Amino acid sequence: MYDPGYSPLLTDLYELTMMAGYHEKGMHEKNAVFDLFFRKNPFEGSYAVFAGLEPALAYLSRLRFSAADINYLAGLGIFKKSFLDYLAVFRFRCRVSAPPEGTVMFANEPLMTVEGKLAEAQLVETALLNLINFQTLVATKAARITSVAGKAEVLEFGLRRAHGPDGGLGAARAACVGGVRSTSNVWAGQVFGIPVRGTHAHSWIMSFADELSAFRAYADCFPDSCILLIDTYDTLRSGLPNALTVARELRDKGHDIVGVRLDSGDLAYLSKKVREAFDREGFPKARIVASSELDEFIIDSIGNEGGKVDVYGVGTRLATCAGEGGGALGGVYKLVRVDDEPKLKVTSDLAKATLPDRKKVLRVIDPQGNFDMDVLCLAEETVAPGDVVYNPAAPEEKKRLPAACRFAELHRLVMDNGEIIRPCPSLAESADYCRKQLQKLPEGSLRLTNPHRYKVAMSRGIHDLRSRLIAAYERFFV
Amino acid sequence: MYDPGYSPLLTDLYELTMMAGYHEKGMHEKNAVFDLFFRKNPFEGSYAVFAGLEPALAYLSRLRFSAADINYLAGLGIFKKSFLDYLAVFRFRCRVSAPPEGTVMFANEPLMTVEGKLAEAQLVETALLNLINFQTLVATKAARITSVAGKAEVLEFGLRRAHGPDGGLGAARAACVGGVRSTSNVWAGQVFGIPVRGTHAHSWIMSFADELSAFRAYADCFPDSCILLIDTYDTLRSGLPNALTVARELRDKGHDIVGVRLDSGDLAYLSKKVREAFDREGFPKARIVASSELDEFIIDSIGNEGGKVDVYGVGTRLATCAGEGGGALGGVYKLVRVDDEPKLKVTSDLAKATLPDRKKVLRVIDPQGNFDMDVLCLAEETVAPGDVVYNPAAPEEKKRLPAACRFAELHRLVMDNGEIIRPCPSLAESADYCRKQLQKLPEGSLRLTNPHRYKVAMSRGIHDLRSRLIAAYERFFV
Repeated sequence: MYDPGYSPLLTDLYELTMMAGYHEKGMHEKNAVFDLFFRKNPFEGSYAVFAGLEPALAYLSRLRFSAADINYLAGLGIFKKSFLDYLAVFRFRCRVSAPPEGTVMFANEPLMTVEGKLAEAQLVETALLNLINFQTLVATKAARITSVAGKAEVLEFGLRRAHGPDGGLGAARAACVGGVRSTSNVWAGQVFGIPVRGTHAHSWIMSFADELSAFRAYADCFPDSCILLIDTYDTLRSGLPNALTVARELRDKGHDIVGVRLDSGDLAYLSKKVREAFDREGFPKARIVASSELDEFIIDSIGNEGGKVDVYGVGTRLATCAGEGGGALGGVYKLVRVDDEPKLKVTSDLAKATLPDRKKVLRVIDPQGNFDMDVLCLAEETVAPGDVVYNPAAPEEKKRLPAACRFAELHRLVMDNGEIIRPCPSLAESADYCRKQLQKLPEGSLRLTNPHRYKVAMSRGIHDLRSRLIAAYERFFV
Repeated sequence: MYDPGYSPLLTDLYELTMMAGYHEKGMHEKNAVFDLFFRKNPFEGSYAVFAGLEPALAYLSRLRFSAADINYLAGLGIFKKSFLDYLAVFRFRCRVSAPPEGTVMFANEPLMTVEGKLAEAQLVETALLNLINFQTLVATKAARITSVAGKAEVLEFGLRRAHGPDGGLGAARAACVGGVRSTSNVWAGQVFGIPVRGTHAHSWIMSFADELSAFRAYADCFPDSCILLIDTYDTLRSGLPNALTVARELRDKGHDIVGVRLDSGDLAYLSKKVREAFDREGFPKARIVASSELDEFIIDSIGNEGGKVDVYGVGTRLATCAGEGGGALGGVYKLVRVDDEPKLKVTSDLAKATLPDRKKVLRVIDPQGNFDMDVLCLAEETVAPGDVVYNPAAPEEKKRLPAACRFAELHRLVMDNGEIIRPCPSLAESADYCRKQLQKLPEGSLRLTNPHRYKVAMSRGIHDLRSRLIAAYERFFV
């Protein structure tokens, strides 16, 4: 089994200097609450798919500083011995709440809340952001891609462009949460049990005297899992007729060709031509795999043009999320309460001001079971149908919750006293959960361009608390 | 020491199915040559900085399939026992040549050449691409950033947005090759010996009753490494005067404040105001650190507006390379020779056709020591000043090499029979090497927008061989 064994030094130095400062000032055991959230839905889209909780909890539950770690820190010459002694026996003992992986979440909603001793909760900021930002980014991209792919299957094969080995492994995992069904990454297959797929590259063809010999040799080695790459020389003039020849030869021997792969050219057009030819020749079950710098926009266009693709192989744009509005999710981890005082970071831009205090995320569900909007409220607050709620970015905008609705609380306690108290669902379960939620979003939410903006409101309790805190700061500065 | 311990299953499944096919057909021991290269310089720029050789060689030298790996593969039900037995004793025994890390390289030039048994050289495609693509991408971004930062230092702190833990570790490493001097990533400090930097976050300020108390507490804990973050409430009205107060108090106790950090707002304007205030108050050595979604374009603009920044902290845009033309380097690994026959992949687009056969990369150096252009030639070919060379994308364009020039061969044999035969230089040495080369590029090469396009030509030998191979394919299809 794969043990990532991430180091406790997987952190920005400033987490350790702050910890040392809190320790020296006797503040390290103050109670603190941090929220992890992002301010902007990725990919100019309307939602994100939460992922990364399982690796994050595994990391937190095993956080220990080894003698070598302490030695390294001592060598930096900035930490006092009393702090290093504290680290040597350090354990992470906070409470953590979060929604299950695969939950559809929105900008400004806590994806994770960490409550406990200030020094402990502060230390893990960087590692949690690292794990959750990337996993959530890729899971979201995967959901966008599988949503437009419709009935076609999506295969992740971005390992060669991923950000290092673990970047490829993590991408394969997160892609599954967002609905991708298989990967080319054999390591990910071994570690996470994801089905693995793959046949051959152009180099296979080029290693033989000609394309037909290469196809025949491949079919001979893998008669029951034969997918032939048909674009090495000329897709319609060479690859297709040669693949049909081999398909017939396989059939004569009692085997079925699985399909062909298109890796260049006009995929909508070529897939239709190839489909016609295989149907005409009596191979209606032969599948067409398409690849070549695909993303949700290209897949959408292939579908709109009547392309006949059964499997989309998506690499770079999925595993690295490169492209418009992608590449990184800007999750942040903000102190919202310390020592029984709610906190917020004041800025001139209300949209960037944090929402103070320990809170709940409520999903407002209509009588048909669809999602209407979300409401952030204080942990102890009661919200009822018909209540007034506020737009956090423009609090003068308020509206009433519907008279007929119910509320689902999204966060669950997943770690207490540093111990995992709830097993995480399997990747397939998370994917299923994600898929069902996407179907319950308001109409237009899944649109790729200018989607419907899902509303996330704040309750009267948060509204009033935030106004009071901002007023206090303003008094201070006037 | 950090041992990444990447799995031999760090590969796309198709490498293994192709290997199995070659094995079954008795072709696995044929001699083969593969080139790793990219077709387009990243970031719409004019160059790339090669990086990732050391981890790539470490991976190759330790490639072994464990019993657990073999078991997993057996469970897939697609491999024959004879192939799995072969994998159980598999060793990578190829020859590998590459330039040193930090070498400035260009589109279509081999970054790495692998020669040996077909099955061995094929297997490592995915892993090499994974390691080299990402490291080269980040090293290139770092070189772009440090080039425009001029005398200001650049600090990498993108761990929280990096693609997983190892993505952050790898980014810190590659950034150093491209000239970044320090990182916030403590793990990278421990593993690679990179200097680590960092002080405190907004949460430190918010954990105290007010900003001045927070600054005083920090200065008290770290009197000799005190950098204060001054934008929590209001940079000029609150952060700056409070920081000056603490700077004076530190001075009274015999310490020097190290500096302040700006993390929001108009960094050019604020840095000038803060510089004036610190100079006026007698702290000319106090340094100004700036951060906030920086990249090479923003740093360039801060410099052009006379900003007074001593250290740029660069996160997301460096560690993930998110943004225009970034996110992934599209390196490929192509068969160029098998069984004593040169190979090329034919396509309708000459710019995407590979250059066949085993080759050398020659840098043409003028009498002043500056780089004029590069020439790709056959391994056994001799190229002399004054020779005619060709544009690979438009072979009707030819030119003569200068009469006065010398040639530097960029590749060196770094692995033979699967063993590393040449120790890799330190990261600091690679960075130094990189910096010196960037200075030798033609004028305009470092420009961020529409840079000078460095010429990469092919020799007459490659030109003639490619023409012959293309003609042979064309005869076949006409």
